[in-house]
Amino acid sequence: MLNFDFYNPTQVLFGQGQIAALSKLVPANARVLLVYGGGSIKQNGVYSEVLAALAGHHVSEFSGVEPNPSYETLMRAIEQVKAEKIDFLLAVGGGSVIDGAKFIAAGALLADDPWTILEKYGSNVSEAMDLGVILTLPATGSETNASSVVTRKSTQEKFAFMSRKVFPKFAILDPSKTYSLPARQVGNGVVDAFAHVMEQYMTYPVGAKVQDRFAEGILLTLIEEGPRALSAPDDYQVRANVMWCATLALNGLIGAGVPQDWATHMIGHELTALYNLDHAQTLAVVMPSMLRQRKDAKRAKLLQFAERVWDIRDGSEDERIEAAIARMQAFFEQMGVKTRLADYQLGAGHLDAVLGNLEKHRYTKLGEHRDVSLEVSRKVLEASL
Amino acid sequence: MLNFDFYNPTQVLFGQGQIAALSKLVPANARVLLVYGGGSIKQNGVYSEVLAALAGHHVSEFSGVEPNPSYETLMRAIEQVKAEKIDFLLAVGGGSVIDGAKFIAAGALLADDPWTILEKYGSNVSEAMDLGVILTLPATGSETNASSVVTRKSTQEKFAFMSRKVFPKFAILDPSKTYSLPARQVGNGVVDAFAHVMEQYMTYPVGAKVQDRFAEGILLTLIEEGPRALSAPDDYQVRANVMWCATLALNGLIGAGVPQDWATHMIGHELTALYNLDHAQTLAVVMPSMLRQRKDAKRAKLLQFAERVWDIRDGSEDERIEAAIARMQAFFEQMGVKTRLADYQLGAGHLDAVLGNLEKHRYTKLGEHRDVSLEVSRKVLEASL
Repeated sequence: MLNFDFYNPTQVLFGQGQIAALSKLVPANARVLLVYGGGSIKQNGVYSEVLAALAGHHVSEFSGVEPNPSYETLMRAIEQVKAEKIDFLLAVGGGSVIDGAKFIAAGALLADDPWTILEKYGSNVSEAMDLGVILTLPATGSETNASSVVTRKSTQEKFAFMSRKVFPKFAILDPSKTYSLPARQVGNGVVDAFAHVMEQYMTYPVGAKVQDRFAEGILLTLIEEGPRALSAPDDYQVRANVMWCATLALNGLIGAGVPQDWATHMIGHELTALYNLDHAQTLAVVMPSMLRQRKDAKRAKLLQFAERVWDIRDGSEDERIEAAIARMQAFFEQMGVKTRLADYQLGAGHLDAVLGNLEKHRYTKLGEHRDVSLEVSRKVLEASL
Repeated sequence: MLNFDFYNPTQVLFGQGQIAALSKLVPANARVLLVYGGGSIKQNGVYSEVLAALAGHHVSEFSGVEPNPSYETLMRAIEQVKAEKIDFLLAVGGGSVIDGAKFIAAGALLADDPWTILEKYGSNVSEAMDLGVILTLPATGSETNASSVVTRKSTQEKFAFMSRKVFPKFAILDPSKTYSLPARQVGNGVVDAFAHVMEQYMTYPVGAKVQDRFAEGILLTLIEEGPRALSAPDDYQVRANVMWCATLALNGLIGAGVPQDWATHMIGHELTALYNLDHAQTLAVVMPSMLRQRKDAKRAKLLQFAERVWDIRDGSEDERIEAAIARMQAFFEQMGVKTRLADYQLGAGHLDAVLGNLEKHRYTKLGEHRDVSLEVSRKVLEASL
């Protein structure tokens, strides 16, 4: 087990009816900005429940935070925060809204241009506004972590930053509010959570037995419950398991004390920034080829994955590994997320731009061994065509 | 899955060398009281490392916190805190020292008699002193939770209290500092952690799949690593897994969203208060009989436990359940913790006092179904003779 520093102060209120707790969680004298995306929260009842719980509070609104939230949009929110002397952000939505709210929380208090937060990966964030979250789309884990991903439209760049100052104070997770999600978002969310676990689990053994078992526990649950979330959309227990799994996948716990990879994510971010694929689509495309390409460095964990997650015990090592990767890829497809670049109308001609961006952003030594060079990334992408 | 409210703000610094981080974690102007037990921290190097890390800080000491920390001892510490205007408690030791420090932290700021904290289970705690922890004995999980157990010697009473105000600010866990623990404490610690998981896992199914798998992951790891901690005391990875498992067993996570039992613990507390058994000894004695006694109410989870934790798949339901309980009991014995009251020179004549105390403390409806009456507790104890 590697040394680690684990910290996660976000209070999680989980279950049907928990939105009502907002009335106590948000200080009575706060000047609240409700941050959300499109209109889905008005259709699924969340918006009206939130406003009812905040009766008596000062509440303004900022809507229109888009998937892969943009710097350009969020800067307008920062202007509103300053103009209206907002002191509490309430993000209502999925990972994009929450990521956006984290950027607003840090950017509004920064003397410099907020873009520097992304250039410096959050290292210049010394304070942030109070932030609470109502999660409506289980996927990214952003509701209880210190990370955020923001895109600059004008330059087609997608950057992550991290700061313990932007941990939400609380996150309210009501699984019944996810019944009405479109199948595409359900599938994307499950694939995203699965990939988050893999990035922290699928590296090399360091004797961290309990972290491995927690990771495998999340994967097994996603494999069982993900397809049911599609086939029985209003099964509360299924939704509850998917929602809690997605949070646990990226709250820092399973990644504490183990090596981490994240090469698939970094390549995926470039695909989204350039070609506007959904985040989960990029992961579903890149991860199978990535694991095949790096099979030798990940051999021990791939064999463990095959046995414990997919119950694959027969065949040679290479056969078991390939069978496990194929099962994972089939699972992504089962969740409705296509796993080939061709499925998204991308071909060999689109790869140079991706590699160019990776080079420009100095993502030339990715992965747990820092050995995912541009050449390796090219091979992975070519194998994903 | 049941609704839940999960919150755990303790920062965990894990690994060899982490004690040095104290210099940054404790505010420079703090007036620190080092709270510890006997002399073991002076023998294993922890004491000198702590003082070195706190060079330049104002540090006083309070030693002599005993196993099952007593109200009488802790009240002397509270007097010292007030007399010396202490504003930061640093607990260095195992669960007893940490539990004691939590009581000091809350009691020192209470206008009432601190004993009322225990009478009111912590509900009257509205503030507490800052508290940091250096853990030297993995067992109770107290290092990252909001609970504390204190004994009043004069009345032979052992009470628990809980308050989110007493969460440690940080907990430093260095597995190498546990190499020198006596075998008895290692065995007790593993049994204690195992029992903590069972109290939260071994109830009835509520569809909380990921909590179940996390619980099973901790149990499997304790079963693998516990005996190795006895046979190879200075294996870092073994100690790291045991230490992290003990913390995860009672940090609130696996108990979030599931029913909980705790009947074994409540009966065990009376055995300790009356006859001075080690806490883990009481659990090892009571839990096997408790599970046998309540086999029908716990049937579904006992069968799951048999299959997933002990890989028992053959035989009738009752045979598999009995085999699983027997394996658990044998594991406790393997860890050096005896599982019969007779092993501790207790016989049928000692039971009335236990039952009398349970009645006096109104522990007459214990367990996840509130159906562990005094009569059931008597049967459990009789089966443990």
